[in-house]
Amino acid sequence: MSTVIALETSDVRFPTSTSLDGSDAMNLDPDYSVAYVRVVTDDADGHEGHGFVFTIGRGNDVQVAGIEALAAHVVGRNVEDLLENMGATWREFVWDSQLRWLGPEKGVMHMAIGAVVNALWDLKAKRASLPLWQLLGRMTPEQIVELVDFRYLTDAMTPEDALDILRQAAPGKAEREAELLASGYPAYTTTPGWLGYSDEKLVRLAKEAVADGFDMIKLKVGGNLEDDIRRMRLAREAVGPDIRIGTDANQRWGVAEAIEWMSHLAEFDVAWIEEPTSPDDILAHAAIARGVHPIPVATGEHMANRIMFKQFLQADALQVLQIDATRVGGVNENIAIMLMAAKFGVPVCPHAGGVGLCEAVQHLSMFDFVAISGTTEGRVIEFVDHLHEHFVTPVVMRNGAYQAPTAPGAGTEMYAASRAEFAYQAQARTVDA
Amino acid sequence: MSTVIALETSDVRFPTSTSLDGSDAMNLDPDYSVAYVRVVTDDADGHEGHGFVFTIGRGNDVQVAGIEALAAHVVGRNVEDLLENMGATWREFVWDSQLRWLGPEKGVMHMAIGAVVNALWDLKAKRASLPLWQLLGRMTPEQIVELVDFRYLTDAMTPEDALDILRQAAPGKAEREAELLASGYPAYTTTPGWLGYSDEKLVRLAKEAVADGFDMIKLKVGGNLEDDIRRMRLAREAVGPDIRIGTDANQRWGVAEAIEWMSHLAEFDVAWIEEPTSPDDILAHAAIARGVHPIPVATGEHMANRIMFKQFLQADALQVLQIDATRVGGVNENIAIMLMAAKFGVPVCPHAGGVGLCEAVQHLSMFDFVAISGTTEGRVIEFVDHLHEHFVTPVVMRNGAYQAPTAPGAGTEMYAASRAEFAYQAQARTVDA
Repeated sequence: MSTVIALETSDVRFPTSTSLDGSDAMNLDPDYSVAYVRVVTDDADGHEGHGFVFTIGRGNDVQVAGIEALAAHVVGRNVEDLLENMGATWREFVWDSQLRWLGPEKGVMHMAIGAVVNALWDLKAKRASLPLWQLLGRMTPEQIVELVDFRYLTDAMTPEDALDILRQAAPGKAEREAELLASGYPAYTTTPGWLGYSDEKLVRLAKEAVADGFDMIKLKVGGNLEDDIRRMRLAREAVGPDIRIGTDANQRWGVAEAIEWMSHLAEFDVAWIEEPTSPDDILAHAAIARGVHPIPVATGEHMANRIMFKQFLQADALQVLQIDATRVGGVNENIAIMLMAAKFGVPVCPHAGGVGLCEAVQHLSMFDFVAISGTTEGRVIEFVDHLHEHFVTPVVMRNGAYQAPTAPGAGTEMYAASRAEFAYQAQARTVDA
Repeated sequence: MSTVIALETSDVRFPTSTSLDGSDAMNLDPDYSVAYVRVVTDDADGHEGHGFVFTIGRGNDVQVAGIEALAAHVVGRNVEDLLENMGATWREFVWDSQLRWLGPEKGVMHMAIGAVVNALWDLKAKRASLPLWQLLGRMTPEQIVELVDFRYLTDAMTPEDALDILRQAAPGKAEREAELLASGYPAYTTTPGWLGYSDEKLVRLAKEAVADGFDMIKLKVGGNLEDDIRRMRLAREAVGPDIRIGTDANQRWGVAEAIEWMSHLAEFDVAWIEEPTSPDDILAHAAIARGVHPIPVATGEHMANRIMFKQFLQADALQVLQIDATRVGGVNENIAIMLMAAKFGVPVCPHAGGVGLCEAVQHLSMFDFVAISGTTEGRVIEFVDHLHEHFVTPVVMRNGAYQAPTAPGAGTEMYAASRAEFAYQAQARTVDA
């Protein structure tokens, strides 16, 4: 029996805007940041749960306030009660009737829930001495289904549907675990493609990506059509015909503009067009998908919750589904989303980059491979090479693949020294028991 | 030339959970609250802009933090610059690339923008010595279209479409202003229908509503089917066959359950079924609308933004559109939504109640009548009779109708004494210039 004795938050911001890392058509000057949460218990094992929401600067304090609003659900609680039935814990947070009003299930409050849920999963995995992907992968189909809230989902996927998917994947689990430990999970890189980079830097980084073993790179588009055509041509020349090149418009367009713009880029053999318009616009994405066919539409990093993902799948509005580790309500909701993707036969290719998103989301894709989809065919995790040094268990890339983490936990723990060095406000605020 | 010298916030909470006012199938024990903002200038006229976000208790502090994150866009700014082109001001707030990440355009950060936008409209109306509905109603079609951000809307409504609607309504404006000043705008009341009330209280309040001149009441449903059938029967007996009775499930159901449940209530002649499922679920609402036909589906109070409303209209997923004064990005975004409703021929019947929502939203419906739809046919504003005494210009109801406000401003100013008496934290926090 142990008790949660503190939920500590911190507002951590890296001054990335000075280098234009992360610049795209909508996000001109991001300061990559995290609203961070640390869950401390009185257990003699000393394990802590760490989680965060990634933001791009201003408003990170609002996100921290959202996390603090959940302290009453966590501090003073029995640790085993919280961790034993993570499905019930998720529901308790999401269905707090007063906090729910602030969404429902979207924006600051829902992301805050995700951070705390992820911190609890980090703690649970550490206590089990397993990396999160293995902890999840070794749960039974029945246990996994228990994690998912099927309210609002059953017109697309019932608990029985989810059980069928999980049971079908069950036989090969051990082999797939071994395969991940041997070879890792395929990645693609966005490092060459930021809008703020010069042509020379784009070409150099694109060539480096191929040399590093990546089979796919991605370019930001949507700022200026002439520039996009020139940059796509340069990139295609740099990498040759066999490397896939994705494009990402970061919500820049409406329907007609997206279709028109992409017609000019199609000749460069585009792997996908990502976020062509508002992440809330299911019907527009469906229209764009029809208009840019056969280029697949990819989206998800800004999608608020499983209910939105459900409709994108129902409407064939995306052909590549991009989960994000800190946008929705944490691990549980991403499992719901990955199960629906499997039901609809759509590949999951996570969004990553930012701060710690690579470290976190790799566990979800690896779990997807082990226990849900059973394949990496057509699947890649985004990779961006910055800020990994601040994490206790940073990602390990080899031959363009994420190497399977073996350290216990969810990968979400940042060094205390980094949190302190880049603390935006004077000190961490703590809600004690 | 004057300058904004302070943006003051306060966390105001009324302990309504003790009386179960406002209880429904999803919100069992709300403490009606506002995250309040007051914009102070150095102008000799002494006018202030007041706005707020309505919440139901816990998390109101998070909402306050969201509002404070906008201080840098307001404090120290030239008042005339901010107010002269409110379309540009709205865009500046919504397209702050870093704050945008926290939505985009949804949840805490978007509602915070709405509060500040509404406070600026309150200030602008006070400076013009006009109630907001008249200030808006007297703007030209071109000026009104300038207030709207058409990004992501043009596949459903172009600026030209909006101009056509406004120009068509222009000729009768003066007559309709006079009509509102003489007779007000029709209302319905939810006061009898909260789930926490006894049968006796329900019957008594339903009869009182009819005696007070209301043509429509609304009952909360979705807790227990037997109870709902009994309460609907009692209500129908109490009000007779000529009074409309709406129902409101507050997001309780999935598709199949909504259709099944409503089949048991249809015999009581239901005016509409409100919020049958998740406010994010366009496709589910469309399926429910087909399944419960001819009962109309009403929704909107939890809808995050104009992009969601657009799709609900495109998919015929609602037949009654319920704007809320503080859920979306303020007056500007609600104008976009009302224009789309007109384009699709759907009546706007605002959500109100809470704290100050009646005071605020009446201006929008009256503007809709004067300058957009030109009719009150099939249109009613919700009315709930509590907490009005805290507002400087409380709503005036007569014969079941909102009487047109004549005081300058947006109706959103709460007495300083009320803000102080119900302040949740010790004192208001101020961000000074």
